[in-house]
Amino acid sequence: MEKRELLYDGTAKRIYATDDENILYVSYKDDATDYFGLKKSSIAGKGSICNRVTNHLMQLLEKNGVPTHYMAQLSDTDSLIKKARIIPLAVIVRNISAGAFAQRYGVEEGIVFEEPTIELYLKNEALGDPLINTYHAVALKLITHDEMEAIQQMAFSINSILKEFFKSIKIRLVDFRLEFGYLPDGTLVLADEISPDNCRFWDSETHFRLDKDRFRLDMGYVEEAYQEIITRITNA
Amino acid sequence: MEKRELLYDGTAKRIYATDDENILYVSYKDDATDYFGLKKSSIAGKGSICNRVTNHLMQLLEKNGVPTHYMAQLSDTDSLIKKARIIPLAVIVRNISAGAFAQRYGVEEGIVFEEPTIELYLKNEALGDPLINTYHAVALKLITHDEMEAIQQMAFSINSILKEFFKSIKIRLVDFRLEFGYLPDGTLVLADEISPDNCRFWDSETHFRLDKDRFRLDMGYVEEAYQEIITRITNA
Repeated sequence: MEKRELLYDGTAKRIYATDDENILYVSYKDDATDYFGLKKSSIAGKGSICNRVTNHLMQLLEKNGVPTHYMAQLSDTDSLIKKARIIPLAVIVRNISAGAFAQRYGVEEGIVFEEPTIELYLKNEALGDPLINTYHAVALKLITHDEMEAIQQMAFSINSILKEFFKSIKIRLVDFRLEFGYLPDGTLVLADEISPDNCRFWDSETHFRLDKDRFRLDMGYVEEAYQEIITRITNA
Repeated sequence: MEKRELLYDGTAKRIYATDDENILYVSYKDDATDYFGLKKSSIAGKGSICNRVTNHLMQLLEKNGVPTHYMAQLSDTDSLIKKARIIPLAVIVRNISAGAFAQRYGVEEGIVFEEPTIELYLKNEALGDPLINTYHAVALKLITHDEMEAIQQMAFSINSILKEFFKSIKIRLVDFRLEFGYLPDGTLVLADEISPDNCRFWDSETHFRLDKDRFRLDMGYVEEAYQEIITRITNA
């Protein structure tokens, strides 16, 4: 597999074409920003940890029947993924109130929901990634009702599988952000990453945060939190 | 029926208790504000028009099988309504893109949707009435899934009935805001008002706006627009 031109250069990763038009090369970086891109810094070892955590979880999901874009890990920071037509909606699954949810509705963090929730954001940086719902996404012809139903079902399945796995390593899966795409043959797959960058992980007993909130909220022990996640996952 | 203490004093109406604990007395005012309460003014005749338009449309809906809180019109500006436990969610139905929808998603006004859309806002002024979805409303125990399903079905029924009625008087029903409540016996009813204050009405041929956008957007002919609506409705 030959790495070719840079297709995307984001804060947390770079994506390159390869000599196979259906395969992309992803390289994770240590760089980090907060929600608004105001705070820029780097977290030592983050690229390697997010790559390895994502790949571990994608393989766990595949084993449990969830199709993903994962293909192969090439090194600590680099992987091969299947090229997918990415749906322009970010899907957030929540089990416990935290972050934007708690702020938006004026409730405390830590409320355990009886059932998980889903919300959608339109991926459009110029518009500030606004909240959107299924009716609006269908009206704007971004997706059909049936496609959205399949995505929601897959998101809830992913939540069940991950929640159980994280429980076994004494972590509460608070919430996480997913992206989905379609392979050329029409298969719906989980795309992007699943890591402390886009999930909230709280230690089951101490509630110590083991995710990017430590960076966003200047809580210290940022590298240690990322390291703790990869350690618990690889020892699972 | 005896009017008793003032229970609510809003921009557009006052609500009073009566000597019957299940009946409220509503009195419409000419006062108006824009979305943010920055622009305060009054629109001559608005109170009378909103009261009469609301009552006309509530009766039309009742005839078509939609339960409402409407009881009786007492005068041009005053009516009796059934007291309901109001659900703290505003329900917006849209047939055509306009206003906040067009701004939020960066699309032009006037896109006719293939199917109507619904969105929900949490009625909480201190939080800026944020967007909310069914999952979140259920997680916050504001409503159950079944109750929300019943509300959505009722909102779509109301849209079908009103859209057909307004088509007959050469008006396009662009979007509108509804509130719902429960009577003491558990009946779900349409509450609040349906008027140029909380609907967008465009003339079918000229697309001339016949609603509060003329006030919000300083378009002039505000009183004339309100007057045109009551004239067309009462001549229907």
